[in-house]
Amino acid sequence: MSIDLPDATIGVVGGGQLGRMMGEAAAPLGVDLIVLDPTPDAPAKRSATDQICAEFDDTAAITALAEEVDVLTYEIELADPAGLRIASDRTGTPVHPDPDTLELIQDKLTQNRHFAAAGIPVPEFEAASSLDSLEKAADRLGPEVMVKARSGGYDGRGNLPLRSSEESAEVYESVGPETVVEEFVDFERELSVIGVVGAEDRRTYMPAENVHKAEILRESIAPARTAEQTRERAIAVAHQVLDVLDGRGVYGIELFESSTGEILVNEVAPRPHNSGHWTIEGAVTSQFEQHVRAVLGFPLGSTGSHSPTVSANILADGDRNRPAHLTGFDATLREPTAHLHWYGKQEARPLRKMGHVTLTAEGQLELDREELLSRARALVSSVSFEP
Amino acid sequence: MSIDLPDATIGVVGGGQLGRMMGEAAAPLGVDLIVLDPTPDAPAKRSATDQICAEFDDTAAITALAEEVDVLTYEIELADPAGLRIASDRTGTPVHPDPDTLELIQDKLTQNRHFAAAGIPVPEFEAASSLDSLEKAADRLGPEVMVKARSGGYDGRGNLPLRSSEESAEVYESVGPETVVEEFVDFERELSVIGVVGAEDRRTYMPAENVHKAEILRESIAPARTAEQTRERAIAVAHQVLDVLDGRGVYGIELFESSTGEILVNEVAPRPHNSGHWTIEGAVTSQFEQHVRAVLGFPLGSTGSHSPTVSANILADGDRNRPAHLTGFDATLREPTAHLHWYGKQEARPLRKMGHVTLTAEGQLELDREELLSRARALVSSVSFEP
Repeated sequence: MSIDLPDATIGVVGGGQLGRMMGEAAAPLGVDLIVLDPTPDAPAKRSATDQICAEFDDTAAITALAEEVDVLTYEIELADPAGLRIASDRTGTPVHPDPDTLELIQDKLTQNRHFAAAGIPVPEFEAASSLDSLEKAADRLGPEVMVKARSGGYDGRGNLPLRSSEESAEVYESVGPETVVEEFVDFERELSVIGVVGAEDRRTYMPAENVHKAEILRESIAPARTAEQTRERAIAVAHQVLDVLDGRGVYGIELFESSTGEILVNEVAPRPHNSGHWTIEGAVTSQFEQHVRAVLGFPLGSTGSHSPTVSANILADGDRNRPAHLTGFDATLREPTAHLHWYGKQEARPLRKMGHVTLTAEGQLELDREELLSRARALVSSVSFEP
Repeated sequence: MSIDLPDATIGVVGGGQLGRMMGEAAAPLGVDLIVLDPTPDAPAKRSATDQICAEFDDTAAITALAEEVDVLTYEIELADPAGLRIASDRTGTPVHPDPDTLELIQDKLTQNRHFAAAGIPVPEFEAASSLDSLEKAADRLGPEVMVKARSGGYDGRGNLPLRSSEESAEVYESVGPETVVEEFVDFERELSVIGVVGAEDRRTYMPAENVHKAEILRESIAPARTAEQTRERAIAVAHQVLDVLDGRGVYGIELFESSTGEILVNEVAPRPHNSGHWTIEGAVTSQFEQHVRAVLGFPLGSTGSHSPTVSANILADGDRNRPAHLTGFDATLREPTAHLHWYGKQEARPLRKMGHVTLTAEGQLELDREELLSRARALVSSVSFEP
């Protein structure tokens, strides 16, 4: 063990809710956390030891952060691989996952190529950097295709379906100039597997099923309501993905389950993932504690789980930005196995993720996943941002 | 609900590990915490929003704290009831539990009288404020008695057994001048029940069994290894105790189980208690989250539990003070259902509580409590403060 307690400190680029929950998981282990985020009093500051206010690509600030910590990591794909590399080179502080992995994942085309070259199942795809090449790709992969921005996409933004050639100019205008055109996968359900690469081994949690609405994750249901052999296949594919990515840490691996039970990799996040929030109460070790352990080189924790678990996001309602003020959370606090997570964001913007609710079936095994899901939805609906 | 998220802030007098774990429980709920403690960088600072450095009886500082928060509480019996009352009167900020309860509990004689008057079973006791009265009390309650300092006792300090009249002068010298003499309870085991008083109801966790060595709690085993009817009796007595104490919050209720199965109240702490640390992983809602909910007037959480659970304290070894530097925690991190809690104390003093390990039987129900206990002990033994 190279790093001993109580002196371990992690530097995190990004100070959103993922950093906040990382800090919540780090504290009981005696691990400190310093976050770098341009927004003063970022959500993660509450559970961090300190915050450096700087842009994600401020190399001098990342270097200053690196000087204070044992390892650098990031909780947002907007982190700057070049800045991380320079900071690491200057200070000798390692970065996990590897900045090369971050760079790979920031580019949807490179990501797809990397996985395809390794024999990992992905949707059929082609690069298109002009309207003409987009139309040709759509012809070959269509009739319907998904057009994705090569980089900069986030939470489904930058992804648009293309259903007929009349739409192609409009879609290209919105998503281009650099795009990836993917066959449209008529998926049965979206799954995700949280995986973790440690110093000694790789582990995965059971696959969760993700429910999206308007491209934003609403609920995750663990385990996914699918056949046992499909879940096993999802885990096997997740292990293939972990095998071809460099650097320790948690990865969120989003998958499609096709109508024929085939598993395809949709995309991968090199960090704890919204679809893994259920692990905080639903698994022995949360994805956040696992990330802390992994980047520090500590032994990994158990990915076993107690019981079926559902997490549901609390999104800001309304159609304008306003101060975040939550009411109606009594029902969640009264529900015996519900857990409220509030991210401490000061401003509620329409559809912004403000918190989440997790509901486990522990001690009430008569509750099936449908019932958990419907209760979790009801709890989230009872929360309001109206003062 | 009078206090809405995300604006709730709790002010805590005391910044030790109990405050630290309170802060860890508060963060996911979006609740902020400001602690008051004379030691800079107190353990709780890591999980608090801020720390005021001041003595526990600094009324001006407590008042300044009260001005910034929605409710005042304390995590140490050394908190000053008078200072809390003044701060509350000046600012209108409520204090939970009530300062009267704190004052009552600070005085072992008043505590015993209060419980006895309410018909709550306590050991037979007498006040003694001179060597002469001590000897008379020992004659009546002996042959063997426990002599306790009326106030200021902590973690067993200030308690001495008196086995024969030859020792009485020495014992009085050490414990006096104001003492409580109690019949010696030849207990079968020590139990404790964590109780919580909320705005709407009172709840208890299952009784744990406490193992002390040299007057310091070493392990807690939940549920206690005793007859079901004894556990029920312990819960009934705990409810009697909660009924006669004022103010919301968590209470640690230490009990003796006599050789005849009788339950007697040993002492009560008006705060989360070391013997309730098992609730962090072993119960649906931890004692710390429960305290946060209770003092804010939020609905209480479930006190149900997953599985048998054991917690074991990590005490500093050696015979001198030295910088705290923990090694050998790998075994704990590798144990599938073990959880490490490190309190972030900078100095290891002999027998100081530096952290704890919790081991649950979840997913491995073949593990009985003996096995959990022996594994937890082995994990704690493998931790070392030798660099």
